[in-house]
Amino acid sequence: MTRPFETHPGHDGELHELHAALQRRLDELLPVGDERDRVSSAMREGVLAPGKRIRPLLLILAARDLGCDRDHPGLLDMACAVEMVHASSLILDDIPCMDNAALRRGRPTIHRQYGEDVAILAAVALLSSAFGVMVAAQGLSPECRSQAVAELSMAVGTQGLVQGQYKDLREGTAPRSAEEIATTNELKTSVLFGATLQIAALAAGASPAARQKMRCFAQDLGQAFQLLDDLADGHAGTGKDINKDAGKSTLVAMLGSDAVRERLDTHLRRADAHFSRACGKNQATRRFMHAWFSKQLAAFS
Amino acid sequence: MTRPFETHPGHDGELHELHAALQRRLDELLPVGDERDRVSSAMREGVLAPGKRIRPLLLILAARDLGCDRDHPGLLDMACAVEMVHASSLILDDIPCMDNAALRRGRPTIHRQYGEDVAILAAVALLSSAFGVMVAAQGLSPECRSQAVAELSMAVGTQGLVQGQYKDLREGTAPRSAEEIATTNELKTSVLFGATLQIAALAAGASPAARQKMRCFAQDLGQAFQLLDDLADGHAGTGKDINKDAGKSTLVAMLGSDAVRERLDTHLRRADAHFSRACGKNQATRRFMHAWFSKQLAAFS
Repeated sequence: MTRPFETHPGHDGELHELHAALQRRLDELLPVGDERDRVSSAMREGVLAPGKRIRPLLLILAARDLGCDRDHPGLLDMACAVEMVHASSLILDDIPCMDNAALRRGRPTIHRQYGEDVAILAAVALLSSAFGVMVAAQGLSPECRSQAVAELSMAVGTQGLVQGQYKDLREGTAPRSAEEIATTNELKTSVLFGATLQIAALAAGASPAARQKMRCFAQDLGQAFQLLDDLADGHAGTGKDINKDAGKSTLVAMLGSDAVRERLDTHLRRADAHFSRACGKNQATRRFMHAWFSKQLAAFS
Repeated sequence: MTRPFETHPGHDGELHELHAALQRRLDELLPVGDERDRVSSAMREGVLAPGKRIRPLLLILAARDLGCDRDHPGLLDMACAVEMVHASSLILDDIPCMDNAALRRGRPTIHRQYGEDVAILAAVALLSSAFGVMVAAQGLSPECRSQAVAELSMAVGTQGLVQGQYKDLREGTAPRSAEEIATTNELKTSVLFGATLQIAALAAGASPAARQKMRCFAQDLGQAFQLLDDLADGHAGTGKDINKDAGKSTLVAMLGSDAVRERLDTHLRRADAHFSRACGKNQATRRFMHAWFSKQLAAFS
């Protein structure tokens, strides 16, 4: 990684516990329908299949780093709502008229398991449920709750995931400048990270100044993630289709792996700096981020 | 219609004005993207194409009948949010892996105009924006605003539109009992009517007792609408594909048109009774409902 990072013996254990708590709560939030109810079953498969839970973990760790009470009664649900939006977007990204992917998280994609119609309905129901979960989250002032719903809404629409997917589909195969690629990456990744971290800040009652720094943090972190995803394409073991980006104008294709890795490091360093300014010496989020990037990069270097 | 209804000379003019106000506000709420932004364009076409605006009109009229101030600052936006959810569901119902429809509101369906990928992205962005519009609606107490978002969320998911569409797709071609058909109709239509009228009641600050009566009203009204839709299938002039229900086990196929029309009348009579109990002598909503059903039924009898 960019620089050595303080180790912390309790870190892994805590992450493991949080991961398990998220899994349990997601399981509770997603109804088990009767056996004919394929939509509920597809929703559960789309969310509960083993995942990294990056966004919900970030939400909880960042909220705590920003001073949120560890026993905040709604934090877990807010994190689950963000994960449901993410899972919904993955189901849709994979369908035949989008990326037509066969594998996700090492399993057949949802439309391969359930059919395209059920996959789309499950994605829509997940998205809608995410808003229901967010608006019912306890321990937020009514104003913060409305802001959290608004953040989620903006992250999905024409200024977020939807627009990112559209740009990737329609402009991805044409020659693009590095700047255009960065814009698409921002829409595809940074915007939902941004909402995730704003919701964390709302839960923590962070100051407007801290919230602004979290926006900058999210932007650099999202770019780093998308670059990591591009670097990972072409390598086995990601649980996704290999070479799905073949023919797409990615930064890896344009600049080569080494240069992309340098860019990634730059984004991570900037993300670090933004986060430190918002959270001072609390560093559970940064520790998580660095450990995660180190592990992923080691896997295909 | 089931019984003569008091005429009201100002009624048509007021409806016309409301319809125009809705159109203007929807136009403002939906961003015009640059010319390459096909998703924004598809969203606008999906919502702004000439429509009957039944749900938003119902929301506004019912809120007023329940005592809501005519100048309520958020009522129009709440009505627009419901229309956006409805438009989103129509775009998805029409795509090839669902009903594969060619015509809607007399125009080519959204996927025929924009491609399937853009249609799906537009539907998702509309749904997400609807939550954003609802949560930003002015003039609601924070608690009522959260309840309005929750109502919308429930109307879409596995207890609402999504489940109704799934049942229609998967069970529609198999023999079904009249009761099973009624359940599917409830999910496809009554549930969003229910949310619409609950949001109207929230805007009006209606009592729990009145809200309960509005739930009953929505249920009968939704059944009546779905029966009207079934009766209309096979007739030209609806702006939709003709005979789209061919091969489906509808009540018209099972019981014949006359019996379905009797059922429709029964549901309307019940809806009338529920509404009167909630709203006493205020009857703009009932007048609208009766005028609308009379006009539609006259068109294909």
